[in-house]
Amino acid sequence: MSLAQLPLTRESVLEAHALIKSRIHRTPVFTSTTLSKLASSGDMNVNLLFKCENLQKIGAFKIRGATHALARLTDEELRKGVVTHSSGNHAQALALAAREASSVRGFKIPCCVVMPRISTPSKIAATEGYGAQVVFSGSTSAEREAEVRVVQERTGAVLVPPYDHPHIVLGQGTMAVELAEQAEELGMPLDAIIAPCGGGGMLAGVAVACKGTGVKIFGAEPREGADDAWRGLRDGQRVGSVESLTIADGLRTPVGLVNWGVISDKSYVSGVYTVSDEEIKLAMRLVVERMKVLIEPSSAVPVAVALYNKEFREVVQKPGQGKDVNLGVIISGGNTTIDKIIELFGVKN
Amino acid sequence: MSLAQLPLTRESVLEAHALIKSRIHRTPVFTSTTLSKLASSGDMNVNLLFKCENLQKIGAFKIRGATHALARLTDEELRKGVVTHSSGNHAQALALAAREASSVRGFKIPCCVVMPRISTPSKIAATEGYGAQVVFSGSTSAEREAEVRVVQERTGAVLVPPYDHPHIVLGQGTMAVELAEQAEELGMPLDAIIAPCGGGGMLAGVAVACKGTGVKIFGAEPREGADDAWRGLRDGQRVGSVESLTIADGLRTPVGLVNWGVISDKSYVSGVYTVSDEEIKLAMRLVVERMKVLIEPSSAVPVAVALYNKEFREVVQKPGQGKDVNLGVIISGGNTTIDKIIELFGVKN
Repeated sequence: MSLAQLPLTRESVLEAHALIKSRIHRTPVFTSTTLSKLASSGDMNVNLLFKCENLQKIGAFKIRGATHALARLTDEELRKGVVTHSSGNHAQALALAAREASSVRGFKIPCCVVMPRISTPSKIAATEGYGAQVVFSGSTSAEREAEVRVVQERTGAVLVPPYDHPHIVLGQGTMAVELAEQAEELGMPLDAIIAPCGGGGMLAGVAVACKGTGVKIFGAEPREGADDAWRGLRDGQRVGSVESLTIADGLRTPVGLVNWGVISDKSYVSGVYTVSDEEIKLAMRLVVERMKVLIEPSSAVPVAVALYNKEFREVVQKPGQGKDVNLGVIISGGNTTIDKIIELFGVKN
Repeated sequence: MSLAQLPLTRESVLEAHALIKSRIHRTPVFTSTTLSKLASSGDMNVNLLFKCENLQKIGAFKIRGATHALARLTDEELRKGVVTHSSGNHAQALALAAREASSVRGFKIPCCVVMPRISTPSKIAATEGYGAQVVFSGSTSAEREAEVRVVQERTGAVLVPPYDHPHIVLGQGTMAVELAEQAEELGMPLDAIIAPCGGGGMLAGVAVACKGTGVKIFGAEPREGADDAWRGLRDGQRVGSVESLTIADGLRTPVGLVNWGVISDKSYVSGVYTVSDEEIKLAMRLVVERMKVLIEPSSAVPVAVALYNKEFREVVQKPGQGKDVNLGVIISGGNTTIDKIIELFGVKN
């Protein structure tokens, strides 16, 4: 990687936020009496504060990291362009960030996205729609990375990886700065945040952003095939692969090396909790029907942990303290379709 | 009706807003580059500003009118209670408004809602969940009104009608006051607003709120069975019935008498435009997938007019003026479910 690296500190996140905040949406924070009641037990009120990154540009938080990574590159580097491999939200994020940085810098920044040949046509079209060149590869990570190297050798483009890089981590962490501010504005200062964990860039960023503030950070994973962080924490060793079983398709990624350094440190992340696909669907239905916002299944994972994971509920409710708990919940994205909803929910259980 | 009546003026709407604004959400206004592009032609940019009343309390704008109507009643009247007939959003709106007014006034305000026996169990449960008593009736309006009279004779309760009353109209109009303020805050002062038209309380309220401000007001109706306002304007006479064909179930209501007085006056409402159910579905899909918010089919009707009704597009684009147009679009509610979405969109066209 040719990106010069900043230290993973709260100060770096605040710097990142100052750099990108005029180029991203300060997404709203929603509350829901119904969902908060479901997350509460007995006398203990758990107030959920949903940070709605599904209402972010490109429909997901990934624009934060991509915008920040580009802001850290020099004109000289950017003239050669940027490249990444992604079939998901990062592809569109980098494409849009490159287009917007082009108008800020005053010259065209070439953006090349390596996507598996089997990617859905709508995602290819969306990425091209933001002005990126799409190059196709095989589906394995080795094939994708080989194709990235071909592009780099040809153009000198800088690789902006999807999640495992400090500048991406710091960019994603900016959402926690906003969420903490917004919680204060609502008169509900945060006690804790729960965030989904796939490649771990966002969870690590949120944890770094909150370090030293007293806000506890928790991760949420799908139990069915993609609980690599949970298993890694149990066994004291990073797990380098996942299966592609869960409906939470944005989280079918093992935690990156940089991110594991943060996530495996108890002083940053207090714990990772898992839920079943059935619980993810229940939570997704509740968010869509009660909060009236569209979320992708991955976004329902931390909601499902807050509602259905007994162990998490006991930890977060801090029994005996008799005080309400204000829990931030990261809604990571909303990039799904009515057809996918029909596919997920169409067959009655 | 035993509600004393205020005049239908912009001043009355501003008074209503001052009375209710601490008890309702100031719902957000969203923009969408994608949808605005679709509403534009050639050099003329139509910027859509969506007033998201689907994110209002009870998931629809109806809480505004109900809260205002209750605020206008005396303690003496409220002790005897309120009654209405509705199987839709007004039922929940009155139930919640009565519960909240009870805590403001310091005594329990009885609320009775007459619903057809065939109402969906979830709507009955939601209404009861807000603390109202549900009384069942037959499905015709005569049967419902007879049941209301029985309740009134027994209790002395005040009827708070769903749409055809000045206090309801003035309450619904408050959304236009906010929308105009929010458009200014966004640096996009409004040229026009398009609102759905069922019973017409909201369209009339929005028109009254904007009277004299230079903002043009348009109505939107489903063409398939519920275009009574459109036909009434064409023929110069209010149409008193609709068929229950359209998927926009919230708009299967003829315009009320009070509301017709406003809507049929060109100095208030510049025109009413219609769209097919197929266009309503296309618009609903776009709003859900691109803006990531859940809307009910009725809310998609003004969006569909802005995107697909040629006559409206020509009128709103004011050809030859060469200026961008800022068009407010009322998103009236989001009370639908994943199962209903599957019912609507499940069969491929």
